Amino acid sequence: MDSYKTLREEAFEANREIPRRNLAIYTWGNVSAFDPCRGVFAIKPSGVGYEALTAASMVIVDLDGNILEGSHRPSSDTDTHRVLYREFPGLGGITHTHSVFAVAWAQAGKPLPVFGTTHADHGVHPVPCTGFMSAEAVKNNYELETGNLIVETFKKSGLDPAHTPMVLVAGHGPFTWGKTAAQSVYHGAVLEEICRMALYTLVLNPAAESLPEHIINKHWERKHGPGAYYGQRS
Amino acid sequence: MDSYKTLREEAFEANREIPRRNLAIYTWGNVSAFDPCRGVFAIKPSGVGYEALTAASMVIVDLDGNILEGSHRPSSDTDTHRVLYREFPGLGGITHTHSVFAVAWAQAGKPLPVFGTTHADHGVHPVPCTGFMSAEAVKNNYELETGNLIVETFKKSGLDPAHTPMVLVAGHGPFTWGKTAAQSVYHGAVLEEICRMALYTLVLNPAAESLPEHIINKHWERKHGPGAYYGQRS
Amino acid sequence: MDSYKTLREEAFEANREIPRRNLAIYTWGNVSAFDPCRGVFAIKPSGVGYEALTAASMVIVDLDGNILEGSHRPSSDTDTHRVLYREFPGLGGITHTHSVFAVAWAQAGKPLPVFGTTHADHGVHPVPCTGFMSAEAVKNNYELETGNLIVETFKKSGLDPAHTPMVLVAGHGPFTWGKTAAQSVYHGAVLEEICRMALYTLVLNPAAESLPEHIINKHWERKHGPGAYYGQRS
Amino acid sequence: MDSYKTLREEAFEANREIPRRNLAIYTWGNVSAFDPCRGVFAIKPSGVGYEALTAASMVIVDLDGNILEGSHRPSSDTDTHRVLYREFPGLGGITHTHSVFAVAWAQAGKPLPVFGTTHADHGVHPVPCTGFMSAEAVKNNYELETGNLIVETFKKSGLDPAHTPMVLVAGHGPFTWGKTAAQSVYHGAVLEEICRMALYTLVLNPAAESLPEHIINKHWERKHGPGAYYGQRS
Repeated sequence: MDSYKTLREEAFEANREIPRRNLAIYTWGNVSAFDPCRGVFAIKPSGVGYEALTAASMVIVDLDGNILEGSHRPSSDTDTHRVLYREFPGLGGITHTHSVFAVAWAQAGKPLPVFGTTHADHGVHPVPCTGFMSAEAVKNNYELETGNLIVETFKKSGLDPAHTPMVLVAGHGPFTWGKTAAQSVYHGAVLEEICRMALYTLVLNPAAESLPEHIINKHWERKHGPGAYYGQRS
Repeated sequence: MDSYKTLREEAFEANREIPRRNLAIYTWGNVSAFDPCRGVFAIKPSGVGYEALTAASMVIVDLDGNILEGSHRPSSDTDTHRVLYREFPGLGGITHTHSVFAVAWAQAGKPLPVFGTTHADHGVHPVPCTGFMSAEAVKNNYELETGNLIVETFKKSGLDPAHTPMVLVAGHGPFTWGKTAAQSVYHGAVLEEICRMALYTLVLNPAAESLPEHIINKHWERKHGPGAYYGQRS
Repeated sequence: MDSYKTLREEAFEANREIPRRNLAIYTWGNVSAFDPCRGVFAIKPSGVGYEALTAASMVIVDLDGNILEGSHRPSSDTDTHRVLYREFPGLGGITHTHSVFAVAWAQAGKPLPVFGTTHADHGVHPVPCTGFMSAEAVKNNYELETGNLIVETFKKSGLDPAHTPMVLVAGHGPFTWGKTAAQSVYHGAVLEEICRMALYTLVLNPAAESLPEHIINKHWERKHGPGAYYGQRS
Repeated sequence: MDSYKTLREEAFEANREIPRRNLAIYTWGNVSAFDPCRGVFAIKPSGVGYEALTAASMVIVDLDGNILEGSHRPSSDTDTHRVLYREFPGLGGITHTHSVFAVAWAQAGKPLPVFGTTHADHGVHPVPCTGFMSAEAVKNNYELETGNLIVETFKKSGLDPAHTPMVLVAGHGPFTWGKTAAQSVYHGAVLEEICRMALYTLVLNPAAESLPEHIINKHWERKHGPGAYYGQRS
């Protein structure tokens, strides 16, 4: 029973960040933590409030969707997480929320332009927005197809999920990921903040331009490039 | 005196959620809890601040508006609650607030479109907005006529209050309901959140489309349909 | 020294509400409490943060602007308070803040329409907005002339300050008043909330209409009319 | 090691104000405190969260960019601070944040008009917004050139940094300064508040006018002029 203890604790701690960072009310968000060696992830139980969560309540699921351990039903979005872990290499965590400004962009059906350095610090491209899922796909397996829709959106646009760790699902909301569950929630909070900044930017200037390429690249490079100098040496 | 203890406690706890969820400042919101067997409800006393409330201060009223127990005057909106309990079957609680974004939609006089899955998780139709009450109806019994206005709005549009547990009263604000008092406040918080998301959606895209029917229905079904799989088995 | 103890405490408590209700950051707001029998008021010391206030630090000023007691300089807006106490009968307290949405309306130079019942519960008319002060008036005595500007605005429009306990000073911000200092801060919080609601209303519907007269009057009457039935019998 | 104790503590305390005043999430802001006699400043370590900061973790840097003391890497924006201390006389502290509304104005690429007295209390001119940095300047030394861009913007417009203690860097965000580190954060909070007020002002009135000159000057003078009477005599 203790074999997934660390994974469960990682998922538990990351889920607790959702209300702390105001990324969802009630039970409207979930985080999972992935162990790539064993091909399993720990995910929030469905419909349970954050204050009632314990590490033990996290559900252990494999990449085929089998529940390996846990007395609760896993998040209803489990199949979306599963597809992303299978298709996007290098992910250690995934976060889904209904944070207000990210949802507004998703409902507006618009990709998020790179208006400033706050965005460029975390990605050099606009955050893509998927199209709406077809009626057929919905009938098949809605949550699994949500994952497929995200994967297709990245393939079509040639985006690398390692460099654009976030997406807006049209009419739904944000999914974000990272090397760890904690980083995936961090990217959820980043996306909400840049969605908010970008909305106000457009209110002030409907013709606001993207940040010039050379500034976008500089900000990315100083945090993530080979000569990165942001933060402390680890 | 203790015969309505549980009902009073249910109403008391639900009223305390109003300030916790930022649904009204001062005394600008009220919740009631209904006992359908006895045909009575417990409701917030009028003009008393949430921090000063006690379970004992809740007022017990029957469906004819008679005060059965309580040393305080009941909420000035008591007659609106009364009409809704009488006309909408299956209600266990009603909430009225002056939450900012729901009031803005009510003041704009516009029904709330289903822009996304956050809305569809709680209802498949736009949240209706009543018209303004006539001068005659105001003179008659304003609060009772507010209830009638809501009932008429549902009848005219063919909406089922069990599936659309919320309404915007034009120029006033939201009323929401549920199977329990707690669920009625939950719907109050949901309505505020989707009103906020929808406003920002329109700022980003004044031509934003409704979520396609097949996605709306899928989200409703996975939470409320016969094969619902959201949350834990109870 | 203790002769103004109650008045000082009333002013102190009311000033502490400013940060609690998010009506101003730092030192950007002030409340005074008036004793009409003695013709004196207690007011916040200038430039002192709310957390550093004590009842003893409140300054006692008479209607001619003489400082009767207190070791601090009174609020720089003291002369505005003085004019309003002299010209508007029945005031027991005055509040000035830089709350964000009220300031936005003041900077937009627009009176606040009665878009809903939240407004009508506290006044039957639009909240007036003054014009800009002339260069000459500024040179004379800026704060005293701010008071005169408010008084003129009410006289010109035929408004009764007892029924419209709030005003927007163009390019500056809100002044509100009441029967007590506490009620004047309450009106400051009300004004901020209805300014916020009204802004979002216009975002949703730039052609939003005023609430019909018969509903405005009903809401005012049920709270303030001869047959008022809101709240508890006192 | 204790020779910079006071300077470190000043910087530490000022950095802690950033999350308290909601001026940045995570590590997205930094404050430095300058000692003009010794020509050195204490600055936040790069990428360290505010809750993990200690006075001892502040890094001591001289005006040539040499690290005199400290076991951490200094803020990645250190060279911007350095240029401003060298070029703008009289500065005792500098603050850089990613506060949402100031970033929105910076991303919109627009100077902030003087719409009201809240602004005029802290500066008589619009807050300038720089242009975008050239690709060449970015390649040279991005952070140092950010400082140069700010200095040029002030030179071109003839603005005095002592009277306009704030700037918007296009596509990036705000830098503010003051006689002390604490005052520089205060100006960061002021800028955020007036950016928010100004955005809402334009939503209400896209043709909103600047505050008349005579009122702007009056507000500046009563706080900062030779006969200033705001606050307590010190």
